[in-house]
Amino acid sequence: MRYAVLGTGVVGQTIAAKLASLGHEVVVGTRDPQSTLARTEPDGYGNPPFSQWLEAHEQVHLETFTEAAAWGEAVVNTTAGAGSVQALESAGSANLAGKVLIDIANPLDFSQGMPPSLNPVNTDSLGEQIQRTFPDVKVVKALNTMNCQIMVDPSRVPGEHTVFVSGNDTDAKKQVAELLASFGWSESSVIDLGDITTARGTEMLLPIWLRLWGAVGHADFNFHIAGA
Amino acid sequence: MRYAVLGTGVVGQTIAAKLASLGHEVVVGTRDPQSTLARTEPDGYGNPPFSQWLEAHEQVHLETFTEAAAWGEAVVNTTAGAGSVQALESAGSANLAGKVLIDIANPLDFSQGMPPSLNPVNTDSLGEQIQRTFPDVKVVKALNTMNCQIMVDPSRVPGEHTVFVSGNDTDAKKQVAELLASFGWSESSVIDLGDITTARGTEMLLPIWLRLWGAVGHADFNFHIAGA
Repeated sequence: MRYAVLGTGVVGQTIAAKLASLGHEVVVGTRDPQSTLARTEPDGYGNPPFSQWLEAHEQVHLETFTEAAAWGEAVVNTTAGAGSVQALESAGSANLAGKVLIDIANPLDFSQGMPPSLNPVNTDSLGEQIQRTFPDVKVVKALNTMNCQIMVDPSRVPGEHTVFVSGNDTDAKKQVAELLASFGWSESSVIDLGDITTARGTEMLLPIWLRLWGAVGHADFNFHIAGA
Repeated sequence: MRYAVLGTGVVGQTIAAKLASLGHEVVVGTRDPQSTLARTEPDGYGNPPFSQWLEAHEQVHLETFTEAAAWGEAVVNTTAGAGSVQALESAGSANLAGKVLIDIANPLDFSQGMPPSLNPVNTDSLGEQIQRTFPDVKVVKALNTMNCQIMVDPSRVPGEHTVFVSGNDTDAKKQVAELLASFGWSESSVIDLGDITTARGTEMLLPIWLRLWGAVGHADFNFHIAGA
């Protein structure tokens, strides 16, 4: 399968590397490849610059959002939530139409101080915004409730734990569930919450996730729905 | 210990019955006891009227919010979240001052349609509103993330699962943790998230809880933080 992974941050890198390791063809999309490759400093979290990651993953290519989306058979959104709709508009609705779009982004809002709040929230969600803006895209919200290392290697967390799936298209959710299985998620660990409006629920896990990160002292934890 | 349980709904009944069964003295507080006892119809969820429950629990007494709060050594808020601050104002800040207040309420907002949204949300929470309104009260948010049957009997849900605690006062949280232990919660199942601002995180679990209720098909489930 040809996957366009939009976003060059740690989540995008982690998903792109996993997809490539599973034999998929992967193009990472960014606003301006030249500018992305020109960065030589670590990012705000101390991660090495993208160019360094790309050198270590030579089967992955870097293109513009538009080129990546046009080429991909499926799209993964790992851009920062506050800029996701703009990034997808730059990818172009015609290049996204009819495709499954796995939305991993969270609409974190740093303008109200730390810890970040969410925008949109409560009566709307980023997943819904994307679905409304691109009605011909099959948006599936998934994997946005955990650290990216766990997304592609659930065995990092001991015991049973959960990955939530939200979306309007049953076949698209089935396709995402198969991808999750290839990442190591057991069938019973996947909970289909319903249509894309249920993305409000998973995005609204972020505030407690951020506090748990502090309380637990590491990011290798995940939500599990006991008794489900 | 003398517990004032504010609110006559199913959560209040369940907590009051459990406290009484553990040998605590319990008074349930309501706005107007005469009016509460005059109800002969089931509530909106089909539960029998409060008077019927009270007859079956003769060691529990019904008083006004004010009388209950003045009498109690500790207070439990199980009133509907949209009216909790008003109910506590009616109880009287002098009657609450210096006491531990366990806040189980969630600020569900039915004015934006179903499923309910939250108000306040995101940059504020009901727990924080109560703490700000009554600065002399030791507010501990707890137990608001699960069905009330599970609050007092965690063994209903198989395996490990979690109860979150938020509050500014360490001793008050310790006292609540001891109460939780007497309800059957193991020490490792209690996660102290930090100060009362972390109540945003637990209240914001409600949207996914409501969707899980639909997806799972029953309410005997609970959040568990795997790897914590």
